[in-house]
Parts: sequence; C-alpha cells; structure tokens
Amino acid sequence: MKVSIVGITGYSGLELVRILNGHQKVELVSVHATKEIGTKLSDIYSYLKGICDLEIQSFDSQKIMATADLVFFATPSGVAKELAKDFIAADFPVIDISGDHRLPAAIYEKWYKKAAAEQASLDKFTYALAELTDVKGKKFIANPGCYATATELALLPLVKEKLIDVNSIIVDAKSGLTGAGKVLSESSHFVNVHDNYVTYKLNRHQHIPEIVQELKRFDNNLEHIQFSTSLLPVNRGIMATCYVTLKKPLSNEAVSKIYQDLYADKPFVRLQQDLPELHNVIGSNFCDIGFAYNPVTNVLTVISVIDNLVKGAAGQAVQNLNLMMGWDETEGFPMTPSYL
Amino acid sequence: MKVSIVGITGYSGLELVRILNGHQKVELVSVHATKEIGTKLSDIYSYLKGICDLEIQSFDSQKIMATADLVFFATPSGVAKELAKDFIAADFPVIDISGDHRLPAAIYEKWYKKAAAEQASLDKFTYALAELTDVKGKKFIANPGCYATATELALLPLVKEKLIDVNSIIVDAKSGLTGAGKVLSESSHFVNVHDNYVTYKLNRHQHIPEIVQELKRFDNNLEHIQFSTSLLPVNRGIMATCYVTLKKPLSNEAVSKIYQDLYADKPFVRLQQDLPELHNVIGSNFCDIGFAYNPVTNVLTVISVIDNLVKGAAGQAVQNLNLMMGWDETEGFPMTPSYL
Amino acid sequence: MKVSIVGITGYSGLELVRILNGHQKVELVSVHATKEIGTKLSDIYSYLKGICDLEIQSFDSQKIMATADLVFFATPSGVAKELAKDFIAADFPVIDISGDHRLPAAIYEKWYKKAAAEQASLDKFTYALAELTDVKGKKFIANPGCYATATELALLPLVKEKLIDVNSIIVDAKSGLTGAGKVLSESSHFVNVHDNYVTYKLNRHQHIPEIVQELKRFDNNLEHIQFSTSLLPVNRGIMATCYVTLKKPLSNEAVSKIYQDLYADKPFVRLQQDLPELHNVIGSNFCDIGFAYNPVTNVLTVISVIDNLVKGAAGQAVQNLNLMMGWDETEGFPMTPSYL
Amino acid sequence: MKVSIVGITGYSGLELVRILNGHQKVELVSVHATKEIGTKLSDIYSYLKGICDLEIQSFDSQKIMATADLVFFATPSGVAKELAKDFIAADFPVIDISGDHRLPAAIYEKWYKKAAAEQASLDKFTYALAELTDVKGKKFIANPGCYATATELALLPLVKEKLIDVNSIIVDAKSGLTGAGKVLSESSHFVNVHDNYVTYKLNRHQHIPEIVQELKRFDNNLEHIQFSTSLLPVNRGIMATCYVTLKKPLSNEAVSKIYQDLYADKPFVRLQQDLPELHNVIGSNFCDIGFAYNPVTNVLTVISVIDNLVKGAAGQAVQNLNLMMGWDETEGFPMTPSYL
Repeated sequence: MKVSIVGITGYSGLELVRILNGHQKVELVSVHATKEIGTKLSDIYSYLKGICDLEIQSFDSQKIMATADLVFFATPSGVAKELAKDFIAADFPVIDISGDHRLPAAIYEKWYKKAAAEQASLDKFTYALAELTDVKGKKFIANPGCYATATELALLPLVKEKLIDVNSIIVDAKSGLTGAGKVLSESSHFVNVHDNYVTYKLNRHQHIPEIVQELKRFDNNLEHIQFSTSLLPVNRGIMATCYVTLKKPLSNEAVSKIYQDLYADKPFVRLQQDLPELHNVIGSNFCDIGFAYNPVTNVLTVISVIDNLVKGAAGQAVQNLNLMMGWDETEGFPMTPSYL
Repeated sequence: MKVSIVGITGYSGLELVRILNGHQKVELVSVHATKEIGTKLSDIYSYLKGICDLEIQSFDSQKIMATADLVFFATPSGVAKELAKDFIAADFPVIDISGDHRLPAAIYEKWYKKAAAEQASLDKFTYALAELTDVKGKKFIANPGCYATATELALLPLVKEKLIDVNSIIVDAKSGLTGAGKVLSESSHFVNVHDNYVTYKLNRHQHIPEIVQELKRFDNNLEHIQFSTSLLPVNRGIMATCYVTLKKPLSNEAVSKIYQDLYADKPFVRLQQDLPELHNVIGSNFCDIGFAYNPVTNVLTVISVIDNLVKGAAGQAVQNLNLMMGWDETEGFPMTPSYL
Repeated sequence: MKVSIVGITGYSGLELVRILNGHQKVELVSVHATKEIGTKLSDIYSYLKGICDLEIQSFDSQKIMATADLVFFATPSGVAKELAKDFIAADFPVIDISGDHRLPAAIYEKWYKKAAAEQASLDKFTYALAELTDVKGKKFIANPGCYATATELALLPLVKEKLIDVNSIIVDAKSGLTGAGKVLSESSHFVNVHDNYVTYKLNRHQHIPEIVQELKRFDNNLEHIQFSTSLLPVNRGIMATCYVTLKKPLSNEAVSKIYQDLYADKPFVRLQQDLPELHNVIGSNFCDIGFAYNPVTNVLTVISVIDNLVKGAAGQAVQNLNLMMGWDETEGFPMTPSYL
Repeated sequence: MKVSIVGITGYSGLELVRILNGHQKVELVSVHATKEIGTKLSDIYSYLKGICDLEIQSFDSQKIMATADLVFFATPSGVAKELAKDFIAADFPVIDISGDHRLPAAIYEKWYKKAAAEQASLDKFTYALAELTDVKGKKFIANPGCYATATELALLPLVKEKLIDVNSIIVDAKSGLTGAGKVLSESSHFVNVHDNYVTYKLNRHQHIPEIVQELKRFDNNLEHIQFSTSLLPVNRGIMATCYVTLKKPLSNEAVSKIYQDLYADKPFVRLQQDLPELHNVIGSNFCDIGFAYNPVTNVLTVISVIDNLVKGAAGQAVQNLNLMMGWDETEGFPMTPSYL
C-alpha cells in the first residue's frame, strides 16, 4: 500500500515517517509541504538521511491520487478542510490528523475561531478513537486530538458504566512542548519553557468540545468538563490527571475490572497497577492508565499517559490505517517505549 | 543577632545560608550536622567558598545557646522533636522548618508514621504562615510546609469569605525535586526524573492534614481536601492548581478584590493578572497567585506558585524571624526572582 | 535463534530488550539478575508490560546453555570476567557489553582498578567495533565502550590515512546520564545534574586505553590521547568533539572523501554535511559524523554523535550478533531516530 | 547615583534590574526600549511586580542625561555604536554591555558583519575585564563578552607568566541558552534545544578576536586560538574548557600559586580545588576556576565557569560601575550562587 503525507514538516508528519519506516505493508511515496519544495527531506532533517530521502513536493491532489492509495493530513488546523475536498470528491481515502473534521461546524468555529469544513465533508468523516470505533472499510478518518485521546481513554469506561457524576469531571492535563507545535513564539522559546510550568488556554482549549462530544455519547447527562492544560518542560508526553466523583464507592477490584473488560483485546491500552509516568509510553503507541480511590473525599483519580506524537497523533493514525485495512492493529509497531 | 542552623547539609539549611548572607541584622555563627564534622562547609559545597567558611559542628544544644540567640531546625522530620527539647526547656528561640511541631500528636503519627513530639513541646509552638499569623514576640515557630504554604495562600481568602463549597476543593500540586529532599533513591535518580512527570503519595502526602487544619480555622465546614502531588523535572518551584466550586458565581473583579484585601499589606504575596508560572518566583520569597473562573462549570481555578526552598522553607523562616523581632518582614530580602 | 541476557536490570540490558523486541530472527528466552529473582520483568518495569513478561532468573550458566544459543553480558565491569568462564569452556557464544574483555590484563587492572579476566579468556575474545572488525563466525565478542565507539569512528579514517599528528589528539567528550549507570550517588541525583555540566574522571576514564589501543593499530606512532568526559543533563547521547592537527592542510572535499570511502558500505555511519547534534541519532544505532577545518589554526574539528545505549552498547551488540551470524547488519533495526 | 538602562527587554537588561535592586548606592531611574513604550515593565514581566514598576520609555539621550548619571547599554550589537554617540559627545558615562566598543573597527566588521563604531568613539572606550583593568575614574567602559570573560580569566595567568605554548590553546566552551539571546529561531525553540547539544558558529564566534586581543597583550607570540561554542540545554551558565600545552611540566602547587597570586585580592574569582561545575556560580558574579594536569600528554586542562548573565554581562557591568566610582567592587552583590 502506498501513502502520501501532506504537512511533512510538522512534528506529526515527521513522526509518521518514523513510524511508517518500520511498517512492512506500507510504502511512503510522497511528502508535501508549502515550503522547501524540491529539497530532500533528509537535507533539512539530517537525522532522516538514508531513511527518507524523498524530495518535498508542493501539494497536488491529482498527483497524490495518481501515486498513492491514501493520504495523511498532518497539517495545522484550517488546512485539511480545504485540501481534503478533492479527495473526498474522488472517494480517495484520507486520514486527517488535524482537528478539521472532528466537530460539527458551529462548535468548530466557536473553539477554533476559524471557518469550518463544509457540512458535506464533515458528513463523510468518522471520528475514530481507535479503541472504540469500528473503522474497517471506512475511507475518511478524523484522528482524535492528543489531549482528547488521553482523556477519553481514561474516562470512557467509567462514563460508559455510569459510575460517576459526569458533571463533576475535572481534568488537569499536561503536555510536552511538541504538543504546542513548531511555531516560533515566546511561549516555545527554550528559556521560557525550561525550569518552568505554564498553564495555558485555561477553559479555552479546543479539545474540550471534542472530549465532551465523545463522552456524551456514552452518558448523555454530561454537560461539560473542567479541563486545564499546561506545558511540561519535556518534548514528548501527555498526562491527563482526571478527578471524578463516584456515584457510590467502588473497590479497587471493581474499578480494575471495568477497565480490563473494556480494553481486554486492545493491545495499546494497558491498565497499570501503579500510577503511570510519562516514561511508561514515550516513543510508543501505548496509553497506560492507573487510578487511586480516596474514600475520604469519594474522589477517584484516574491517570492516563500517552506519547502525544504517537498515540496522540501519528501512531493512532497508523493504528487507524491498520484497522481500516483489516490488518492487525499492531502492524508496523514493534515500538517498545524508549523508557528513558 | 546571632543564629545557628541545625541540619546544614539539607537543601533548606543551605538555602538559609544563602538568604542570611544578605541579611544585615543577622549573623550566622554556627552550622550543625551529623556528618562531616570539622569540615568547612565550603570544602563540601565549594559554591560557598568565601561566603560561608564555617566548620560543621556536631549538635550541642548548650554550645548553641551559649553562642547564638536563635536556632533554626532544617532537619528531616523526626529530628527536631527530640533535639528541640533543650531549647524549649531553656526558653531559647527556635524556628523549626521541619514538620515536627505543626500538627497534633495523633495526626502527626498517622501521617508521618513516626512518634510525635511531646505534647508539652507542641503546646509551645505556633504554626506560622507568615501572612496570617501574629508572631511578634513569639519564641517557638513551626514553619509551614512547602505545599501547605502554596495551597493555603491560594485558598484562604476564598475559605475565609465563605465563597466556596469547601468540600469540593481539589488541588493538583506539583513540585521540583528539591522538595523531595536529598535522599538518594530511584525516584530522585536523574534518569528517572528527567523527561518524566511522576505522581506520588497520592492521597497520602503529609501536608494534607496541615492544610486541612489551617483552612478549617476559617471555615469549620471543611472536612477534607482532595490533594495530589507530582514531581516536575525542575529543581525549584511549586505550583498548586486549585479547583473550587463557587457557592454562587462571582465576577473577576469580586474575586480580585477578595485577594487584594486580604493581602493588601503583604509584600510577598502578589495577585497577578495572568496565571503565574514558576519563573515568576524562583529564587525569591514571593507567592504569586492568579485565577480564572469558568462560568460553564462554575469552577474557579486558582493557581499559586512559590519557590519551595524560599517561601516554602528557608525564606519564610527568615520572614518569620523578621516578624518575631518586629523588623520589617522584607529585611534581608532584596531577592528579585532570578526569573530564568 | 535464542538468546539470554545476564544483567537485565541495568540500562544496557533493558535496551537490549527494546531492540530485540523488533528483531525477527532472535527470541529472548531468559533474563538474569542478582535481585528480584522470580519477579516478572514487567512488574518492575511496567513500560515492558505485554512486551517482555519473562521472570527474572538467577544466573545459571548450565541452564542458559540448555535454553539459549548465545548470551549477552550487560553487567557492570568485573562480573563478566567471572561469569563468562563456563561459556568459554563450553565454546558457547558470548557478547560481552562490559569492559571485561577489551584490554590486556595489565592495562585493565591499571584503569579499572580491579583484577582482570584470565589470560586464557582474554585470548578468546575479539574486540569488535562493528564497522572495522570481521566477526563473522566469531564466538566471543568484546563490545566496545560507548565513548570509545564515538571516538574511534570519528578518528579512525584520519589515523588510518596518516593525515594527522596523532599525538595532538584532544577529545572533549560528553555523555548523558545513562552512560553513568544506575548507581545511586550524589552525582546522579537529579538536583545535582539538572541545570549543570560536570567534568569527571578527567585523564582517568577507563575508555582511554581502549581508544589508544584501537587507534594505535592504524598508526603506531600514537602514544596517548588527551581525553575528557563530562555529564550533560540529558538521558541519552554522546558527543565526541575531537580536535586534531593536520600534517598538512586538506580541503573539505578531501576530508569528506576519506570518511565516505571508509564508511561507504557501513549503513550505521553517516557523514553529515553539518555538524551533527545529539538529536540526529537518539534511539537509533547511527553514528553521525561532521567536521570543520580551521585554516587559521590548522585544527580539524571532528564531531561524532551516538546514542550511548544503542550504538554505544546494546545496539552495537545486536549489530555484532547480526554480523557473527552472517545476517544483514541492519536486521532488526528499523529504528529511525526519535529525533526529539 | 542614578542610572538608566537602554535595551531593557533583553536578558542582560532584565538581569541589570535584578542586580541593581540589591544595590544600596544606585537607583534605577529609567528603562528604555524600542517597543512596548509606555507599558510598565512589570506588566510585561510580571515577576518584577513591586520590584520595578517603571514605564518603558523610548530612547531619548537628552532625557537620560537630564535624569541619570550613567547609562547602561544592554542592546544587541550594532545599536550602541549609534546611540552612544550623544553621550560620548557630552562626556556622559556609558557602560556598554554589547560588543560595539570592544574591537578595532576592521576586526569588528570582519567578525560582526556590520559597520563598526566610529574611530573617535572607539578611542574613548576602555575594554574592562574587571579583574585586570584599572577603570577608576573612567567614563566609557566596553564590558567584555560572556565567553571572553570566562576564557580570559581562565588563561590569563598562564599566558602572563609565559608558561604555555600560546598557539596550542584549544577552548571548548559551552553556554546556556540565555547566551544566545531572546531572538525566536529554530535554534532557540525548546524542542530543538532540550535533550540536545549543538555546536554552532564553529571557528566563527565573534568573541574569538576579543579573546585573542586580550591574551595577546600579555604574550605577543599568541596568533590565534582554536575556539568552539556549543549550546547546553540549560538557561544560565558558561563553562570554558581550555586545553593548553605547557612549555615544561608544572606541579599542581606551582599552577595553583600562579592563579592565587594573580587573583589574590579579586573577590569574584575563586580557584577551586576540584573542577568547578555550573552550579558553583549560577546567580552570582563569581568566576570559579579549576585545573588538572596530565603528565602523559603534557596538557593542562583549565576549566572556568560563570553565570553568563551576571559575570558574563550585567554583573560585571555593575562590578565595573563600582570600580569606576571607587566603591568596593562587591557593593550591591550579596548574591550567593543559587547553587541549584
């Protein structure tokens, strides 16, 4: 199978190259960007020398459709909604890692502050949290956001089983800097990030409506979540620390069982005995989950960790590709966490 | 005024040396430890060469009382409760930075898992969050814990004014590694901390009862708090992210006014317009506070930051010393945050 | 092919697990340590859950020989020299990642300050810098040291071609903390490493004689090198910055050609146009090399970077395994650098 | 004494605010920049709230001369050479922290790639490495560069005593990111710096001619130095690792004596018994020096460390101010290293 990547110079695009390089069933045939056209990818990113020496091409939907069998969009929000149109029209498979096809138009516009994709496009796409969505045979995939992936995997078992007061949810989520993208800004300057911890977009993060939308599918009583996002001085990794009030006390065994049941045949979700750390998953497609119940406050703390570039972006996109094709979902993923 | 430090080789003891070095009214006359006796402090900590070349002495309460006017305990928990007895008996002033004299015996023993100080000793000590305690003329000060300082300063105005559901409090607190002390362990090994974020002692941190005790003084309805502690891959700094449910919605102006009123003449507490970051306070005795209200969830997020070694330990101890002596509480503190 | 690892709880042992997990031709059948016997590896290192759930066994040479086809030693220095004896006696293949079989006994004892392996054992082993050694069919491999690998790959082309004053070599080498091992010490405590840069073992590092020995094979005039080692506040990565005086000025093209010729068919060594950074190679088995000539001083600066745990330890060990077996040396290595 | 700062929004300008805040004899009366005019400094840099609430002003030489007694330039290179003219014409004291008045015009233009200051201006300025220059009563000070300060203090004693082959000098210098300034660029983006180590401007750093010029004053045989600069993933700190060949072997005692003699009454230069680390000096105006001689190679390694923003910029500027005024050079500096 042949694939192309649009938006190659961003972190998700580059991570796709890394992952696809180990995938036996997929060949990367073209990479596209808006700058550095004609330059070898490995001349800009010398770590890819000998691994991916493709030349960067400008975007050309016809050429992509003539060469490849599927296209990944690893573009900033606002781009895929335009560029994906030709593929949709031609019924050519798309996996969109950006946020453009995840939300209803009105909600997208409210949270992203830009024009949404056309309704006809949105109708084609399936939001695909890989563990909870049947994508076999689907052609248009909206890959979940990084914070959303970590939060949904942590909370869905409890929401689905109606065990918690869904309007009590408070999520204190933290991400490494790659989650904030490559844009040069004061807030991504090394000196401002190092030895620091910065809370940003409080109550305004665009993954909030995505999480609410997905959790609500399983318990319609959910109206909102309290969700905060902060930057950790690391490159990769998200931890979602979720505080929920139980409807009634649960034993640790009971909570474990709920997670084990839902994720029994999901190789990339691991319930851990101890609270997971970022190191558990870095470099891999795993989402590790742990929890601790406090009988004094009746609060259950659930912690999930992912590598935001893998399970939170490019890895889940490849996992979705595998599932679309009916392959084993771990195909191409011998990616043991680098651990440290 | 002459002072001695017991427990010189820990982070708080060394930080006291740094702070006292800039204090015109205080002279450090002896430093005490249980090892390296007879060695110059600056032979072990070469950064102190020319700044503090005192020899480390073994502990000798009589000698300290003969030489100094006050003694700081910067010892691990369980030490001061024994060594302070002679000073108490002699009515010789003590500032205890450790947790030994902050809690009633039963509560101490439950959370610290060790024998508590004698009741007679505990009765002598005043728990002194410097901004809310009148310590002038007091002789025995229990200096607050680092997490407790950040959390109490963030929440007290709201609790005092009875504006929040006090049993809804959830605090997601994070600390740099100096907060975990100098003990060599897997969890303080560089490789395990770097590029990581680790939640520890969840629901079991010994500062929980201290915070409950202090908040409860202002609203007796408070029964418990949900409190989590994690390790940030930085050396200094604590952020306490506090989520509270308002009894009724409040305007930003109203919230601001509550903080400004309580801290009007408190030079080390600053209400900031934006959410404060660790960089705001590192190296200084400031506690910076910011907040954001979410009308959708009715949750007010209050964030406070301190340098755990300064406002969270040695700095507040010197601030308390200043207040005990009736000096300006900023005496000896030209310590602008190093910022970066 | 079946393999065992002795010394599983060190960084090199764990990294072997990660690499072998992607190797189609090798199965890891047992892991050995001196503690935590009977515990599942993934119960201690939860990131390995589902990847390697083998129980840790105590060392038993007979059992290993009955189960496996080759054994890796990933033990601290001083261990393999004893434990390898049974395997040597039985002519059972060994790859020793430690320093025990790299040097003549007298030199080992001088630099490692411990008793050396027996001469009969040393005679069996081949020191195998994978790019310059023919190990096909060999049974006993002394895998090079991490600093030695980076330094030798950087300098050998120039030494071999007799282009430099070999006694002018000055190497300023830097390593991340995993290079210093897992031992708990003041020097590996997070607080002492973070925001710091520490030069250690100056003129005393045990890789010095190994580098001299290997370079000397190609130019017998070489008597010594000036070699310094420092700790970078990162987990993985070595940079060897090598300063050499040219016998006569060389054009950049001439220098490039020398490297390209020697490493023409060596897939893991890449000559880069720009000076390589740690990010070039982290997580991978690459050694990237770059250089800059200064006509004013007649000094050529050559910079090489490796991941100390991969090319500097476990990765090169697997590369050597591949070469011993006559497989492609990249077998099992789709390990694109994680880059960030 | 009243002073103004031009270039307040750069790291050196902000560090001047921090240092001057502890100085009893100096009052900061105005701060100047090219943007954010009219905004309170503490509204942009909230860590300064209550410490420096001056409004940022546009540059106005007449107004500065009317208000202050001395002006600091903390501007990027190329600015002070223009803006200082009015002050020079009026014989109004200037301390220029930038590189504009350190070098002869032709050399400046070669290395800085921009037009130099006028000769008449250059003639007025004294390059002032504080420990080796008599600046009492001087009015125009060219404050040394950060790398230059560390390197010169490390090497001058040896050069002055003619103990080394001056053309053998190789300096491997490393700096934290604040040394690279605030400019937003790929090379200062957190993700590219963190977990990395990058060598830049090899053989092209603009401090090379400054170092050569100053060392040459003490030994005219010196023609060049080999000098490399790399970025450490830390905010503050420079280490200059200097390799020099001795003319004849020297005992450790002999080397020590040379340093002790030259720096006997220099409170900010400390010869340390062990090799100094960055932690030795961070936050302070110290330059710590250590050394190790290798009899095998006849190479003496000298290591010096400074805080690039303090001794390498703002701190030395205040030290120079103190010396100009005939005050104790430590005036205003109770700045014990923060150590960690």
